[in-house]
Amino acid sequence: MTRILDRIDRPQDLHRLTEDELVQVAQEVREHIIDTVGEIGGHFGANLGTCELAVALHSLLDSPRDKILWDVGHQAYPHKILTGRRDQLATIRQYDGLAPFCATFESEHDIMGAGHASTSIGYGVGLKEAMRLRGQPNEVGKVAAVIGDGSMTGGVAFEAIHQAGGLGTPLVVVLNDNGMSISPNVGALSRYFNRVRLNPKLWHAREGVEKGLIDLPGGIGAAFEKLGPQFKESIKAFWAPGLFWEELDWAYMGVIDGHDVHALRSALKQAFAAERPVVVHVATVKGKGFAPAEEGGLEGMEQWHAAKPKSIANGSPVAAAPAAADAKPAVPQYTKVFGEAMVREVRRDRRVVGITAAMNSGTGLNILQKAEPDHYFDVGIAEQQALLFASGLALEGVKPVAAIYSTFLQRAYDQIVHDVCLQELNVVLAMDRAGLVGDDGPTHHGVFDIAYLRSLPNIVCMAPRDEAMLVHMLRTALLYDEGPIALRYPRGEGVGVPLPADTEVRAIEIGRGEVLHEGSRVALLGYGSGVQKALDAAEILRSAHGLDVTVADARFAKPIDVELAARLAAEHELLVTLEEGVLAGGFGTAVWEALNEGGHPHHQLLRVGVPDRYVTHGKPALLHEEIGFTGPAIADRVLAAIGAPSQEPVGAA
Amino acid sequence: MTRILDRIDRPQDLHRLTEDELVQVAQEVREHIIDTVGEIGGHFGANLGTCELAVALHSLLDSPRDKILWDVGHQAYPHKILTGRRDQLATIRQYDGLAPFCATFESEHDIMGAGHASTSIGYGVGLKEAMRLRGQPNEVGKVAAVIGDGSMTGGVAFEAIHQAGGLGTPLVVVLNDNGMSISPNVGALSRYFNRVRLNPKLWHAREGVEKGLIDLPGGIGAAFEKLGPQFKESIKAFWAPGLFWEELDWAYMGVIDGHDVHALRSALKQAFAAERPVVVHVATVKGKGFAPAEEGGLEGMEQWHAAKPKSIANGSPVAAAPAAADAKPAVPQYTKVFGEAMVREVRRDRRVVGITAAMNSGTGLNILQKAEPDHYFDVGIAEQQALLFASGLALEGVKPVAAIYSTFLQRAYDQIVHDVCLQELNVVLAMDRAGLVGDDGPTHHGVFDIAYLRSLPNIVCMAPRDEAMLVHMLRTALLYDEGPIALRYPRGEGVGVPLPADTEVRAIEIGRGEVLHEGSRVALLGYGSGVQKALDAAEILRSAHGLDVTVADARFAKPIDVELAARLAAEHELLVTLEEGVLAGGFGTAVWEALNEGGHPHHQLLRVGVPDRYVTHGKPALLHEEIGFTGPAIADRVLAAIGAPSQEPVGAA
Repeated sequence: MTRILDRIDRPQDLHRLTEDELVQVAQEVREHIIDTVGEIGGHFGANLGTCELAVALHSLLDSPRDKILWDVGHQAYPHKILTGRRDQLATIRQYDGLAPFCATFESEHDIMGAGHASTSIGYGVGLKEAMRLRGQPNEVGKVAAVIGDGSMTGGVAFEAIHQAGGLGTPLVVVLNDNGMSISPNVGALSRYFNRVRLNPKLWHAREGVEKGLIDLPGGIGAAFEKLGPQFKESIKAFWAPGLFWEELDWAYMGVIDGHDVHALRSALKQAFAAERPVVVHVATVKGKGFAPAEEGGLEGMEQWHAAKPKSIANGSPVAAAPAAADAKPAVPQYTKVFGEAMVREVRRDRRVVGITAAMNSGTGLNILQKAEPDHYFDVGIAEQQALLFASGLALEGVKPVAAIYSTFLQRAYDQIVHDVCLQELNVVLAMDRAGLVGDDGPTHHGVFDIAYLRSLPNIVCMAPRDEAMLVHMLRTALLYDEGPIALRYPRGEGVGVPLPADTEVRAIEIGRGEVLHEGSRVALLGYGSGVQKALDAAEILRSAHGLDVTVADARFAKPIDVELAARLAAEHELLVTLEEGVLAGGFGTAVWEALNEGGHPHHQLLRVGVPDRYVTHGKPALLHEEIGFTGPAIADRVLAAIGAPSQEPVGAA
Repeated sequence: MTRILDRIDRPQDLHRLTEDELVQVAQEVREHIIDTVGEIGGHFGANLGTCELAVALHSLLDSPRDKILWDVGHQAYPHKILTGRRDQLATIRQYDGLAPFCATFESEHDIMGAGHASTSIGYGVGLKEAMRLRGQPNEVGKVAAVIGDGSMTGGVAFEAIHQAGGLGTPLVVVLNDNGMSISPNVGALSRYFNRVRLNPKLWHAREGVEKGLIDLPGGIGAAFEKLGPQFKESIKAFWAPGLFWEELDWAYMGVIDGHDVHALRSALKQAFAAERPVVVHVATVKGKGFAPAEEGGLEGMEQWHAAKPKSIANGSPVAAAPAAADAKPAVPQYTKVFGEAMVREVRRDRRVVGITAAMNSGTGLNILQKAEPDHYFDVGIAEQQALLFASGLALEGVKPVAAIYSTFLQRAYDQIVHDVCLQELNVVLAMDRAGLVGDDGPTHHGVFDIAYLRSLPNIVCMAPRDEAMLVHMLRTALLYDEGPIALRYPRGEGVGVPLPADTEVRAIEIGRGEVLHEGSRVALLGYGSGVQKALDAAEILRSAHGLDVTVADARFAKPIDVELAARLAAEHELLVTLEEGVLAGGFGTAVWEALNEGGHPHHQLLRVGVPDRYVTHGKPALLHEEIGFTGPAIADRVLAAIGAPSQEPVGAA
């Protein structure tokens, strides 16, 4: 049987279909995703939830003249499929393949680029106000922002709602609510009513309205009284779902079944016709149409947020092959090492707590949550609040560890400047995903944190070279009590060193680096994951070029171990710094600043790191290759810098 | 007559007073502020609004065991007066005097440091959860966050409200609502009802409840119908003021008269007794008790937000002395030059718009608002949204200029990284208050922007050396269409150069510096306000030491004019960079990076700028003195670096 989907090459191809055919297309999109993502891996559950929504929106709109903004973009696969990228879906998240999120550089239908949450409403206000400014009629250039209930916790989403409400911007927000432990209608209402009641002494809005109803003239009050509490609750229920929005000058429509193409189209048509801000509250099921997700409850949803490669065949999950008996024990991920170390630290010192911004398992704090639930806090997608919350805790003597990906911590930059560093609070920043993260691409690479943190006063910046050092550095951070301290570590597996036993964990000296190997002519000074690259390059230089170079681990980007740096500079022809972060203002530059300020003599300094451009998505090894952050590439640059030929190995020493 | 206030040396001294005496103390606090701030200048109107509130809170609480968090802190003068700093008020905002906002380093009663808006609720959640973690009972360590209605627009405030609502944190938020064009009760309700009605075709909560009421069984519905529309509105009115909070799981109390000590104490007592998040909505009058503010309407309020020194005597405003006939014409402020230039640009190119985040006159955009209201947008205290809004506008071909103080732009760092720079959008960032801002102190100094912007790909960073160059650079930014471009300029007056006429305004070449004077031995390369310091130092070196040095204006921190820098380095013994920003990762470092990457020979480089610590408050001249950012201090360092004695002038050339 041929798919209708195979004839949808542009979204306008949906316009001539019947509603029944649209229903079929949505299902075909779903199956295309299950087949493709089940094979190659990628974001999964959220995309199964937006098949009908993407079809309904594109069937009503004329993209790109009309504009759909997909918040974050991990739920935009159906949109990509419907906008000319059906056959490329199998390349998504791969080097040179489709971008993991929406990307303006990829398609004219991707209106905005994203990857971080909560931005779509703000863009939408800008788009519509720009049209209004040039006198474009509202029906030409309709704008819909599709945002999940999770993204709504980000403060900037509220800032945008405020602005649109104030301006009366004719923007449609589709609130894609996939809370799934409860059915939609009950969901909104139960949250509203099942709350702790306020001390009855307090003036209370709800009690107020009850009294107001009962006191009504003309016998109505008495009649109300007789109807009893259940009736009174039902009166309130009329108000419940939309009032939050209504208070902010938005019209509210909902709750709409997000898997009913007819209902969606009908609601959206009305919303687009309104000349004011409208939110359409849509209930979707994460993982819709894929039984293990849909029927697996919360756990199933979470498990199938993303699918692993080759995890699905013929629409059904494939059991993972059991590990071979002689397989090497797996090297643990930094994330897991961190999570387990957090449990150890909480048990050592009951003042320690972990904070995540909606990245429970991503940060490894799910391990802490399970082991020590009282010492675990999730603030939602709200990195700013994560830092203010940590600041408040620190003022009361708690030892907060804010575990936030390097890229997401950017959201809290002002809190770091104005609250954590200026106030000299003992807040620990644990930055996972520091460096190039791989498949998630440029929105997620954590390459700016060295530069943006080390320019701030009062902070200590460090990075472990391996997973054992991560454990020691977390201890170091928690014992340090002179202000904020940050540690960064990469995505993925550690380097395979043994982890310290409980009794072996110890703090390291602040601002002190470590020489790993004494050689000559060239000194490689790595920071964090740069140390492994230094070791790789040194091995190539030794084995292929007979050059026995010095390798050192700086351990700190602030304060710089200037004594070590000065000695390395003085005793070698060339000092090379290595870091997985942007070079502009980064670690290598910090080394130079320290040497220059210390009045140390001039020296040849080669800085290796991330260049001054955004790096694409793909496997980290490919990206490292692209930017020259590999042992061979570094060895070549070293040889070129000291004037040795890189092509003719001089033989092993 | 002796004041009761003179016997209040600590907040506990309020505990033994009667409520009548508390009323009197509040009035004495008010008069103390009018007398003192009227003489020395400082934040004024908001402080007159919080006299009763500060008295009521401290009369009920036991500070610092109990904790009051003053959002921003410009309304905390009454709190400072009541917590042992009564007699020091006359030193506020002055070098070595009381801090302009709350400062933990100044008093144990200043629980958190602030200066930026919207942080207090977030801290409060942290404080209370820390107490809960260690098992401290709720009544020991009560926490109140006092936040203005303006600060509520900042997204992080919502993030905090979400978290507290979710956790049920027993925190009291005092919403200090000083909207003054409307009386309190009407205010909350009128905003709620006086809104554009939705297209009646749409499902609408309010229509829904009406229908629901009318359809009621037992004859009630019919009775409702007869009562008419006015009655139906009044039913809704019961719900209006608190629902927004109730939806977020907060209890709401309000509206309380913020100048009625009795009502405040009664409401606050109940709020502190509740074991859950409570907001107490308090109506205050900005400028209360000072007729020109209180009776001057919106304009009076705005005018008296801050008082100028010697602007009040004996409780009444003093007319400013007319300028003497022979007085030199005043040099215009950068802010005013910018505002007027924006009007010119909007009239040149109708795609240009200005965006402010609640800093209408502070940014000079009030001039634009008056001249071209359709090209002016105020997003509220919401810097993140300012940038997303600008991004959306830019996507539609508008030319947005986001005019945000350097320090406040920190809030939008992630939007700059993830939305503006990554997406290569034509957004102009106009950063007023770049450098040391003076009286407002460390929370407001704009010293990080060079470092935090220049490490990002795709952005151009520039800074004018005087007010004429500001006009040219704004034109440059608006004609540039290859991505984001930022310009920074200092607080206060320009340097007194003539401004270009309309026909004289022209774009400058991107990445090209300018030599202002050719000399020898030493080259001073300034950036922005650093150029004037270079000229000052050069004049001292010439007149007092016979040293004729080269002076150049870099104009760009990104891209660096590497050709110019290399020539200056090659032709002089010493290259000196001068910038009003932190040295770590700043402009001087960028010059070195460019030289190093360009393979230019080593050279002696001296970087002059802001050291690696937070700088205090006080007049800019004093602060510049403190950090050595003055002509004489720079001249001394130059002489020391080239080995010339600084104490013995060699005579004029």
